[in-house]
Amino acid sequence: MQKPIIVASFVLVLIMSTGFVLAGDAPVSDETQECLDCHSLFHPGIVADWQRSRHARTTPKEALSVEEDQKRLTGKQIPEGLMENSVGCAECHTARSANHKDTFEHNGYDVHVVVSPDDCATCHATEREQFSENIMSMAEKNLSENSLYQDLQRTILGTPHSGADGLHFTPANDMTRADGCFYCHGTKLQVSGTETRDTDAGELDFPVIEGWPNQGVGRVNLDGSRGSCSACHTRHRFSIEVARKPYTCKECHVGPDVPAFKVYSASKHGAIFSSTQAGMNFTHVPWVIGEDIQVPTCATCHISKTVNADGDVINNRTHKVTDRLGWRIFGLIYAHPQPISPDTTRIKNKMGLQLPTDLDGSAATEFLISSKEIGSRRTTMKRTCLACHDTSWVRGHFERLDNTIAVSNQSVRVATQLMESAWTNRYAQGLMGGGSLFDEYIERRWSDTWLLYANNIRFASAMAGGGDYGVFEDGRYHLAKSIMEMKDWMKTRAFMQQQKKISSELLK
Amino acid sequence: MQKPIIVASFVLVLIMSTGFVLAGDAPVSDETQECLDCHSLFHPGIVADWQRSRHARTTPKEALSVEEDQKRLTGKQIPEGLMENSVGCAECHTARSANHKDTFEHNGYDVHVVVSPDDCATCHATEREQFSENIMSMAEKNLSENSLYQDLQRTILGTPHSGADGLHFTPANDMTRADGCFYCHGTKLQVSGTETRDTDAGELDFPVIEGWPNQGVGRVNLDGSRGSCSACHTRHRFSIEVARKPYTCKECHVGPDVPAFKVYSASKHGAIFSSTQAGMNFTHVPWVIGEDIQVPTCATCHISKTVNADGDVINNRTHKVTDRLGWRIFGLIYAHPQPISPDTTRIKNKMGLQLPTDLDGSAATEFLISSKEIGSRRTTMKRTCLACHDTSWVRGHFERLDNTIAVSNQSVRVATQLMESAWTNRYAQGLMGGGSLFDEYIERRWSDTWLLYANNIRFASAMAGGGDYGVFEDGRYHLAKSIMEMKDWMKTRAFMQQQKKISSELLK
Amino acid sequence: MQKPIIVASFVLVLIMSTGFVLAGDAPVSDETQECLDCHSLFHPGIVADWQRSRHARTTPKEALSVEEDQKRLTGKQIPEGLMENSVGCAECHTARSANHKDTFEHNGYDVHVVVSPDDCATCHATEREQFSENIMSMAEKNLSENSLYQDLQRTILGTPHSGADGLHFTPANDMTRADGCFYCHGTKLQVSGTETRDTDAGELDFPVIEGWPNQGVGRVNLDGSRGSCSACHTRHRFSIEVARKPYTCKECHVGPDVPAFKVYSASKHGAIFSSTQAGMNFTHVPWVIGEDIQVPTCATCHISKTVNADGDVINNRTHKVTDRLGWRIFGLIYAHPQPISPDTTRIKNKMGLQLPTDLDGSAATEFLISSKEIGSRRTTMKRTCLACHDTSWVRGHFERLDNTIAVSNQSVRVATQLMESAWTNRYAQGLMGGGSLFDEYIERRWSDTWLLYANNIRFASAMAGGGDYGVFEDGRYHLAKSIMEMKDWMKTRAFMQQQKKISSELLK
Repeated sequence: MQKPIIVASFVLVLIMSTGFVLAGDAPVSDETQECLDCHSLFHPGIVADWQRSRHARTTPKEALSVEEDQKRLTGKQIPEGLMENSVGCAECHTARSANHKDTFEHNGYDVHVVVSPDDCATCHATEREQFSENIMSMAEKNLSENSLYQDLQRTILGTPHSGADGLHFTPANDMTRADGCFYCHGTKLQVSGTETRDTDAGELDFPVIEGWPNQGVGRVNLDGSRGSCSACHTRHRFSIEVARKPYTCKECHVGPDVPAFKVYSASKHGAIFSSTQAGMNFTHVPWVIGEDIQVPTCATCHISKTVNADGDVINNRTHKVTDRLGWRIFGLIYAHPQPISPDTTRIKNKMGLQLPTDLDGSAATEFLISSKEIGSRRTTMKRTCLACHDTSWVRGHFERLDNTIAVSNQSVRVATQLMESAWTNRYAQGLMGGGSLFDEYIERRWSDTWLLYANNIRFASAMAGGGDYGVFEDGRYHLAKSIMEMKDWMKTRAFMQQQKKISSELLK
Repeated sequence: MQKPIIVASFVLVLIMSTGFVLAGDAPVSDETQECLDCHSLFHPGIVADWQRSRHARTTPKEALSVEEDQKRLTGKQIPEGLMENSVGCAECHTARSANHKDTFEHNGYDVHVVVSPDDCATCHATEREQFSENIMSMAEKNLSENSLYQDLQRTILGTPHSGADGLHFTPANDMTRADGCFYCHGTKLQVSGTETRDTDAGELDFPVIEGWPNQGVGRVNLDGSRGSCSACHTRHRFSIEVARKPYTCKECHVGPDVPAFKVYSASKHGAIFSSTQAGMNFTHVPWVIGEDIQVPTCATCHISKTVNADGDVINNRTHKVTDRLGWRIFGLIYAHPQPISPDTTRIKNKMGLQLPTDLDGSAATEFLISSKEIGSRRTTMKRTCLACHDTSWVRGHFERLDNTIAVSNQSVRVATQLMESAWTNRYAQGLMGGGSLFDEYIERRWSDTWLLYANNIRFASAMAGGGDYGVFEDGRYHLAKSIMEMKDWMKTRAFMQQQKKISSELLK
Repeated sequence: MQKPIIVASFVLVLIMSTGFVLAGDAPVSDETQECLDCHSLFHPGIVADWQRSRHARTTPKEALSVEEDQKRLTGKQIPEGLMENSVGCAECHTARSANHKDTFEHNGYDVHVVVSPDDCATCHATEREQFSENIMSMAEKNLSENSLYQDLQRTILGTPHSGADGLHFTPANDMTRADGCFYCHGTKLQVSGTETRDTDAGELDFPVIEGWPNQGVGRVNLDGSRGSCSACHTRHRFSIEVARKPYTCKECHVGPDVPAFKVYSASKHGAIFSSTQAGMNFTHVPWVIGEDIQVPTCATCHISKTVNADGDVINNRTHKVTDRLGWRIFGLIYAHPQPISPDTTRIKNKMGLQLPTDLDGSAATEFLISSKEIGSRRTTMKRTCLACHDTSWVRGHFERLDNTIAVSNQSVRVATQLMESAWTNRYAQGLMGGGSLFDEYIERRWSDTWLLYANNIRFASAMAGGGDYGVFEDGRYHLAKSIMEMKDWMKTRAFMQQQKKISSELLK
């Protein structure tokens, strides 16, 4: 049995299989060499990972010498001293040492543990700039400084206590918070002291950092900056391949609250990616649609610089993910236009809550982008779609998405009306008497409708994703079911209230 | 540290790694060249994908010249004019132009947007023929023309309204339907008019197509045919590798209603596939069990032509997926023998509903295949199993599956009896007074038992799959829990009914 | 457009891509050759898989001749007759034939169907020894001989019947048990007779084995041994690559009861593995952290022998998975220290149940490992962590895990108190009158808290995993919701009890 093997496949496999290139390594600075001397023994995994990184194989000077289109560096004022060596341990962990509260004396060097976006900005200035406009960079603040979200968080992470009148939740401790919501949102790092440790290299002093470890996108760093580049650009290889593959996004975007990865992997795009990724190039910059990749990943649509085979730019790189997004389709009671500022704690709805909509669904418009801006961002997004789909396809897709946003909002409105009716009828407490919107069973069924199911429905629509996520897998089947249960529960509670009245009449 | 590397691995990796072969391209017809001249600029992704396809690299003549066993073409009357060129844009998008309602004049050509199975049949006649007998080809009709399913669909996709007597559901609009159930089942395409668009190539006219885009398996096309080959043979590479890998099936078979992919990926077969797929050949025809693959994917068991190393046929290719399936284990209240006709709207049970069983589980036998036919299809399926497992293994497996079908049906019968009792006692409305079987909470808990949990249990059993899907992940643990909740709910409703009676007695 | 391709990548891809090496095959014994003569025709898949195995390519003699560190064999008394041939059909399936109840005469050989760990021990003695101390080896007994678990199993796998006083569950039949819990836990194999089959090689006799097929980790074999090496070392390639990849563990560890795979795949480790596994070496022994792999899989942390680039041992291989685990974080009401004996049926809590804790969470300490032992096992585990993470990182991680264990236990205690109150108030039956802890809806909601949600929370914490599994995907959001529902249900039941009392007063 013979199979036709064309020799051309030979070179091709080599080129395409991983994109991993082991070039001659770049020179290592004396400082970094000193780090490596010990740490390659103590932490072989870190060092080996770094050695496979582009940081180890290229100097900033070389990286700046490529054609404009292929540039990965955007720093305008990279210090001369950094130009000729690889980007090693010392280059990052001693950068801007005066700015970092965790800087400590370590074998003659001022070292800090936590490298921040402001450190990375030395070479990646534009990306850092864009990221500071990315709502993700405010993920810690937007959660911890929004009183309503804090209440939601308390009823999720906190410890319940059963009282005569219902459940009460003690707020979660810091470690539970760091292990729960703030794993992705980012912790607030703080130096709480110094300790002496008996290491293989003798007794040494180290800072003690609360909230560490953490790589959440909105981490509050010890130089005051917000964010963690390593959330996606995983230490210490900082591989663009990893950042561009959807598995990285999955870390924080897999649950029913934001099921992006699950929906993608069940979409046509995801099927093609999963089946043929070994033949695609995830390291080339700029990313050539058609040539490097034949199907988009998360990064293709939301972040990366893409070009066609002639080198014409399809979309420019952005680290402000909302640049290509008009609607915010998850996390809040109703889908709504993207907030203008990444700092959503500034938003106030008519009820005075830090919410982009009121309970009736009407938007806090002054804090949200305009229809025109929505249109403009959609046009940007569509440029990517149009590289592989014709106009009618793309238009049809987005018409459905708009329809899904409207219809899912409508269903959530029905759920919210039932909830409001439960509060009015005193079947549930709600905000009355300092109560919580989130600590009773019926309230959780209400939050299921918008925090879990409406999300799934919208993501499935947004990605033309596997129908299942729009219907049977946390989709419409379950949204309707929640509302049915709310209605059923109302009937029981109404009965109970009425019977109580009748009984007390009769007992008189 | 040295590792033994045998040079033999060298050639092997090249052969086995992707199976992607870039041969000398086949000649391009003048018509297709004209298409490419513009569209390689406008839609580089489509063109690049096609260029990687076998369609671009082989002429029908070459494809027909291989040994019978290796043939991928089954058309008996391929027009002479198509024989010597690659299968490009024009070959498909201008085929049978008079038959397509979306045919429009485009730069001198009669082009249609939506290529249909009847177009593909020019070269792939047998596959098209088989597919028309595949229940999937009727997926749109079987859903939209079954009144009971329509009611179920209305209570899932529709918008609920809260009334004094319960919830009412407005039927979903067309876009929601296309985004929901019909994403997989297929939409009904219709040309609603023509529009003029200002394109990069000037003002041009295009048809406006309702229900587009869609690639559902049962799509109703603009030439009247049903189906979409691109549901699995993804445009425009039409890669057999993609069709043979389980990710493709996942798109519509991942939710709890039909969890085939999830169960497969947690099965022993799935574990081996996931771990060693890089070393297998997904493009070879026929598929040599043992040599090309050491573990089956969905396609291996259900569709592909498989042979042993001597070339003896294990199973012939079929695009009628039920050829190897005796039982239908999902989607309906009870597992039942496969329907005789792919058009299940013809079925009528004793109650007069278009259902293959009655509510008590008894089968509408005249519409379903016989025990003998079940046995014959199982024998076909077993041939694949026996290539890697001994007789006792295979027999033990299928005995368990039969047991699981019987036992899961029994549990659903208990749930259905509870439901019937709720209807009889007027705790729920059911069909009385023109009511729905699906619009109350308790009714949804009932449908959970058969639409979600019994399915999972049977799929896990059918694939000797990860035990979790049979038990804790949407399996028996949850089936029993639903029934427990139904029983619990009945107790509350019985109490309410009784108390109402007592109160009204006392209030007299 | 040019891309820099360094020729070094060439060799690299070959070395790293699969690790699959087709060396000159080892000699095949005459006995095995006789097997192959027929079975390569009858079961081409089995034979082809074996031909790709190390068993087919290496003799025990060669395998023993490598440096100590690289040894995969630990048998001290490998029979001379096995030394010079590959490990083929006959070597395993005729081994220790007198010990196996399924041994039958087959073409002149005493063959047994089910190869057991005691057979494998001939060459892999230490692994077999370790595995007998692994709690997994007792998975069948620990479930089937624990009366409380049997009751839980009956209410999951059994068939419900609706009675006036509630549901009753008929115990599941053997096939359902084999298809459910015992798929992973392992079945108890038994020879029930002999049958004559008309095969392609004529009429032959075979044993009939109940409980077959099965590959559960705690399978009770026909030589009396417990376990199934093929649970992870999949037949007949027995590939270390498969065993080391997480997909294998997924088979039994994906459901919400033990979501190890799901959490791993959403963790940072999982993201890196998924994105870059093609560049890692999964076959090298010992496993060089940094060089072979840059990220751990399940096996790295829990089983494998790992070394640094200098060959210094980081951790020794163990097949007693609890060697590196202090706490048991799933499957029971409360997380608790690991049991001392793998046979957990010996445990008795204060209530006399075979449970490691009482319902109030206090531990049956005499059956569980000490704090000191917990510390020692954690130190072992930390050695792996420290290969890639600094001390403060690792300490911070484990502090959070300890916190999560304590806090999740606390929440489960609240749920259990509600449950106890329901039993006391006779809202549910519990153990009273020979009742079950698991057969009523409210009891299942209680078991949800510890069997599903607390598990997820702890796994997410243990693997510094995707936050979603700790919160919205079967995590804290749902744990709190269960408790809210329990509280809500208590309110309804209390009302019902009170109203009944009032009514009966009024009706007097």
